[in-house]
Amino acid sequence: MKIAVLGTGVVGSTIASKLISLGHDVTMGARSAANEKAAAWARTAGGRAAHGDFSRAAAAGEIVFNCTLGAGALDALKAAGEENLGSKILIDVSNPLDFSRGMPPSLFFPGNDSLGERIQRAFPKARVVKTLNTITAGVMVNPARVPGDHDLFMSGNDVQAKSEVAAMLRDWFGWKSAIDLGDITTARGSEAYVLFWVMLMGAVKSVDFNIRVVH
Amino acid sequence: MKIAVLGTGVVGSTIASKLISLGHDVTMGARSAANEKAAAWARTAGGRAAHGDFSRAAAAGEIVFNCTLGAGALDALKAAGEENLGSKILIDVSNPLDFSRGMPPSLFFPGNDSLGERIQRAFPKARVVKTLNTITAGVMVNPARVPGDHDLFMSGNDVQAKSEVAAMLRDWFGWKSAIDLGDITTARGSEAYVLFWVMLMGAVKSVDFNIRVVH
Repeated sequence: MKIAVLGTGVVGSTIASKLISLGHDVTMGARSAANEKAAAWARTAGGRAAHGDFSRAAAAGEIVFNCTLGAGALDALKAAGEENLGSKILIDVSNPLDFSRGMPPSLFFPGNDSLGERIQRAFPKARVVKTLNTITAGVMVNPARVPGDHDLFMSGNDVQAKSEVAAMLRDWFGWKSAIDLGDITTARGSEAYVLFWVMLMGAVKSVDFNIRVVH
Repeated sequence: MKIAVLGTGVVGSTIASKLISLGHDVTMGARSAANEKAAAWARTAGGRAAHGDFSRAAAAGEIVFNCTLGAGALDALKAAGEENLGSKILIDVSNPLDFSRGMPPSLFFPGNDSLGERIQRAFPKARVVKTLNTITAGVMVNPARVPGDHDLFMSGNDVQAKSEVAAMLRDWFGWKSAIDLGDITTARGSEAYVLFWVMLMGAVKSVDFNIRVVH
């Protein structure tokens, strides 16, 4: 499959490398076509890896992962371009974290909006699915790093898109199931959870953890 | 033990009734000494139950549960009075939820402050322990309503107070253990989690659930 990964950080490169290892054609997108991290990633990752600016990457992908930092996510997607995003599945992994006061981060909005919703509003044709944003990058692509059963969450307006993403994340990364929280407004919940994740990280003293919903 | 429960809602009455059933002397506090819900609770709950205004209740308790609504919590505690709260353990169950735009709620602060911290700042001598705020009232006093292992969380500056509260919640309600998130600033995490809890409730279609941290 042809997949765009927007973002050159730990999340973007972890997802992009995993997808390459599965035999996909991955284009990593960055603000500039000359981005050195993206170029270095593409060199290391081998023949099926490419890189370019956000617009080139979004055009190349049949689906698009948004792995940019929350503060720059909307600008990155604007640079990717509505014409390139079209009605593609847009897997939004970003979180609206404000690090301007240092650690711990706060949210850009106090739970009455979400980055997932803002992205869906800005690109109404795109089929935004918010997921993977509640775990560290290494666990995203390898849930077995955390022992036993634990949960992935999903928010989005398009039920078919959520179902397709759930199947892809199962086949690619090994996520046995995902809890469908509902439409994209439920991203408010999973994005707010990330503030709790930071505190749990401090208590567990590891990033390799997750939660399981028990009922 | 003599225990004050501030708040007459589902959380306050559930905790107060459970404590009465265990043989404690419980005074339920309300804004007014003539509060009908508090009076009705005290009549039903029997001989060891009393009620009064916030100040009378806080004075009567050796420890104090704050079960008021987040929007009124600081005012309720001011009415309770610093002289009555003293250096008592103050178990803060409240959440800074803003329902002014209806459901789902948002937070009063975007994660860069918390109600737990505000209460600790307003009453610096009180030993504030934030806990029980991540589950529904029925599960607070009976964790076995949710099958299997699941977690309780705790935030507070006073390590000894957290240890005492953990022992009380074990003996009274059956909580086998609590994850100590750290000082009271970590209440930012557990309070933000409540926005996620609301979305999980929609997905699980029940309030009788909780999470387990897996690592």
